[in-house]
Amino acid sequence: MATVKLLADNEMAPEARAVLDDIRKTRGTDFINNFWRALAHDPALLKRTWESIKQVMAPGALDPLTKEMLYIAVSATNGCDYCIHSHTASARAKGMSDVMLMELMAVVGMANETNRLANGLSVPVDAAFRVGED
Amino acid sequence: MATVKLLADNEMAPEARAVLDDIRKTRGTDFINNFWRALAHDPALLKRTWESIKQVMAPGALDPLTKEMLYIAVSATNGCDYCIHSHTASARAKGMSDVMLMELMAVVGMANETNRLANGLSVPVDAAFRVGED
Amino acid sequence: MATVKLLADNEMAPEARAVLDDIRKTRGTDFINNFWRALAHDPALLKRTWESIKQVMAPGALDPLTKEMLYIAVSATNGCDYCIHSHTASARAKGMSDVMLMELMAVVGMANETNRLANGLSVPVDAAFRVGED
Amino acid sequence: MATVKLLADNEMAPEARAVLDDIRKTRGTDFINNFWRALAHDPALLKRTWESIKQVMAPGALDPLTKEMLYIAVSATNGCDYCIHSHTASARAKGMSDVMLMELMAVVGMANETNRLANGLSVPVDAAFRVGED
Amino acid sequence: MATVKLLADNEMAPEARAVLDDIRKTRGTDFINNFWRALAHDPALLKRTWESIKQVMAPGALDPLTKEMLYIAVSATNGCDYCIHSHTASARAKGMSDVMLMELMAVVGMANETNRLANGLSVPVDAAFRVGED
Amino acid sequence: MATVKLLADNEMAPEARAVLDDIRKTRGTDFINNFWRALAHDPALLKRTWESIKQVMAPGALDPLTKEMLYIAVSATNGCDYCIHSHTASARAKGMSDVMLMELMAVVGMANETNRLANGLSVPVDAAFRVGED
Repeated sequence: MATVKLLADNEMAPEARAVLDDIRKTRGTDFINNFWRALAHDPALLKRTWESIKQVMAPGALDPLTKEMLYIAVSATNGCDYCIHSHTASARAKGMSDVMLMELMAVVGMANETNRLANGLSVPVDAAFRVGED
Repeated sequence: MATVKLLADNEMAPEARAVLDDIRKTRGTDFINNFWRALAHDPALLKRTWESIKQVMAPGALDPLTKEMLYIAVSATNGCDYCIHSHTASARAKGMSDVMLMELMAVVGMANETNRLANGLSVPVDAAFRVGED
Repeated sequence: MATVKLLADNEMAPEARAVLDDIRKTRGTDFINNFWRALAHDPALLKRTWESIKQVMAPGALDPLTKEMLYIAVSATNGCDYCIHSHTASARAKGMSDVMLMELMAVVGMANETNRLANGLSVPVDAAFRVGED
Repeated sequence: MATVKLLADNEMAPEARAVLDDIRKTRGTDFINNFWRALAHDPALLKRTWESIKQVMAPGALDPLTKEMLYIAVSATNGCDYCIHSHTASARAKGMSDVMLMELMAVVGMANETNRLANGLSVPVDAAFRVGED
Repeated sequence: MATVKLLADNEMAPEARAVLDDIRKTRGTDFINNFWRALAHDPALLKRTWESIKQVMAPGALDPLTKEMLYIAVSATNGCDYCIHSHTASARAKGMSDVMLMELMAVVGMANETNRLANGLSVPVDAAFRVGED
Repeated sequence: MATVKLLADNEMAPEARAVLDDIRKTRGTDFINNFWRALAHDPALLKRTWESIKQVMAPGALDPLTKEMLYIAVSATNGCDYCIHSHTASARAKGMSDVMLMELMAVVGMANETNRLANGLSVPVDAAFRVGED
C-alpha cells in the first residue's frame, strides 16, 4: 500500500501519460508497473527518472544483463523489496539463471560481510591501492 | 589506523601465517594487504574469510571481473572506503577500464535513487513480479 | 506482527500507562499507535522516547512540518516502512501536499544517488568546504 | 584520494567542459568542486547529474534551503562525508545557522533511533495510517 | 514470497540435502526454516553459510546468547525482517527475556542515533582513542 | 574536521558547561571527547543525549560490557568511524580483549552477510517464528 495513490492512466497529467506511452513503446508491452504509477504524481520526476533509467541501463561498456545484476546487488544491500522483485524479473528476462542469481547473492553476501569487517576494525587503506590517485 | 594492531608475519599464530602463505601463493605476490593483517588476530576468522573469498570470487556462472564489479557496487552502497579501494584495484587488474567504472557507478547511483523512491512511497510489489514464486 | 506483544492499556505498568495518558493529552486524541504499545514493555524507554520526540519535534529554529519532512527523508533512506507511514501521515496532518511529498522524494532520491557516486569514487572533500572548521 | 583522476579543465572531453561552464555560469563562480571533476570521466553521467541537481534543487513547493537540509539529513544517515561537507556549506550559504543545523541533527538522530526501534521490534503499520491508500 | 523457489527436500541436490541433515542433527529437530530452503539452490553457498554459522555462533570468548543479541542488533540496524524474527526466536530459546530484548533495543536505538550525530557533524576521532593503534 | 566548531569550555553556554561537569564527575576524568564539544552548540540536545546514554548504558538486565559490544556492532554496521573508535575504547576499558573483539566482528560480519541473503532473495518469515505474536 503506497503512501500516494497509484494513478490510473486517466488520473494523471498529460505529461505523465506521455512518459507512460514511451515506457510502453520502449518495452513493447502495455503493462506499466506500480513504481511509475506512483511517480506519476510528479511528471517532471517521472520523466527524469525514466529518461535516466533508459540511458543508464542501455548497452555500453557494460551489457544490460550485467547492469541488471548490479541493480540487484544494490537493492539487496539496501533492502528494497520492490526493486529486488522488479530487477530480478528484468534480469531473468535478459537471461539470468537461478545459478547466476545464487552466485550473485554469494558475492553480495560476502561483500557485505567484509565491508563490516574492514569498517568495524577501521583498517587503513594500503598505499599500494592508492597508486596513481589524486 | 585500525582498532587492532596490524600484525607482522612474525607476530601472528602459525595457523594465521599459513593462511598468508596461501594468499601469497594464490595471488603470486609477496604483498599482503592490511585487511588480512587485521584479521590475523583470529586465525579461524582469517581462514574462513579467505577460503570463502577464494570460493566465491572464482570463475563460475559469472566471470571474476563481473564479481569484482558487484563487490564495488555493494561497497559503494555501504560506504566502505577500504573495500572500494581494494576491489577497484582488483577490478582494474582484471581489465576494468575507467569507462566501465563510470558506467558501474551510474548504475549504482541510479539504483540507490530508485530504491529510496520505491521504499519512500512504499510502492507495493506488482503481482506480475511474483509469478512462479513460493 | 511485532516480535513483542503490543500491550493493551490494562496490560502495561502504571508508568507506561502514564506516558500513554500524556500522548493522548498532547495529541488531543484517544488513539495510540502500535509503536508506543510495543515500547510499553520498557516504561523507561517509552518515557524517554516520548519525551525526546516531544522536545525534538516542537517548533524551534525549524518549524514542525519541516521536521516531519526530515523524518520522512531519513525513514525513506533507512527503509523503515512503519516510520514512513506514520510520519507521512503526520506531515500530511501538518499541511504537506502530494506535490510537496513528491519534491521531498525527488531530493531524497537525488541525495542517495550522489552520496554513492561521491563515496564510490572516494572523492576527497574540497579545502573550500573546510573553511573555519576545527 | 579518489579512485579516478580528478580531471583538470584541459583533461576532459568538450562535452564535459561544457557542463563545467554551465556550473560556473549558474553558480556565478569559477570554482568547481571535486565531485564534478570525478564525474567528468563520463560526460553523459556528468551532464545528467548536473541537470537533475539543477531541476531538483530549484525553488518549487519546497524552498531551496529546506531542500539542502533534506540533503544533509540523507547524507548524514548514509555517512557520506563528502556530501555532508558540500551540502552543509551550501545550506549555510542559503542561510542555515548553527542553531538550525543542530535542530536538523536532533531530528536526524531521533529518526535513526526510532527507525530501528520500529524495525527491530517489527511493529506493524496501524490501519489508521493506511486510510485512502491503494 | 521469495524470488527463488523454496526447495522441498526431494527437490534439491544430494549435497544440499546432506547439509539439511546436518542442520537437523545439530539442532535436534526436523524443522528446517525457509532461509536454508532458498540457499539450497546453491549447495556450495548453503554448505559454506551453514558451516560458518555453526563456527561463528558456537561458544567461545563470547557466549551464544550474547552472539544472538549481537545478531539481532545488526539485523535491526539493517532492517532485515526475516533475520529479526529468526534470531529473536533463537535468542528467546537461549534465555533472552522481554526485558533483555527491550534493553538491547534501547542500545541499538541509541547507537543508531549517535552514529548519525557523529557522522552528520563529521566529528574527528580524538587522539586519545587512537593510542596504541597502527 | 567537524562541520561545527568544537567548543572549548569557555565558549559554550552555562547549561552546556553543566553537562560537561556531570560527564567529568560521572566518568572520574577531566577528559571530554570531541563528540560532546560538537553537541555543545545545542545545550538541550547535549543534555538529552548524555542523560539517555547514562540511562541506556547503565547496568540492567544486560551488563555494561555487553551493551558496549552491541554499540560496536551497530557502529560497524553503519560505518561510523568515530563511534567505532570511542566504543571500542570504552569496551576495552570494561574488559573486552582482542579475542572478544574478533569474535564480535565475526558475528557482525556473518549477520551482515545473511541479512542480505535473506533480503536479496526475499525469503518469507516462517510461521514458526511468529508464534505468540500480535
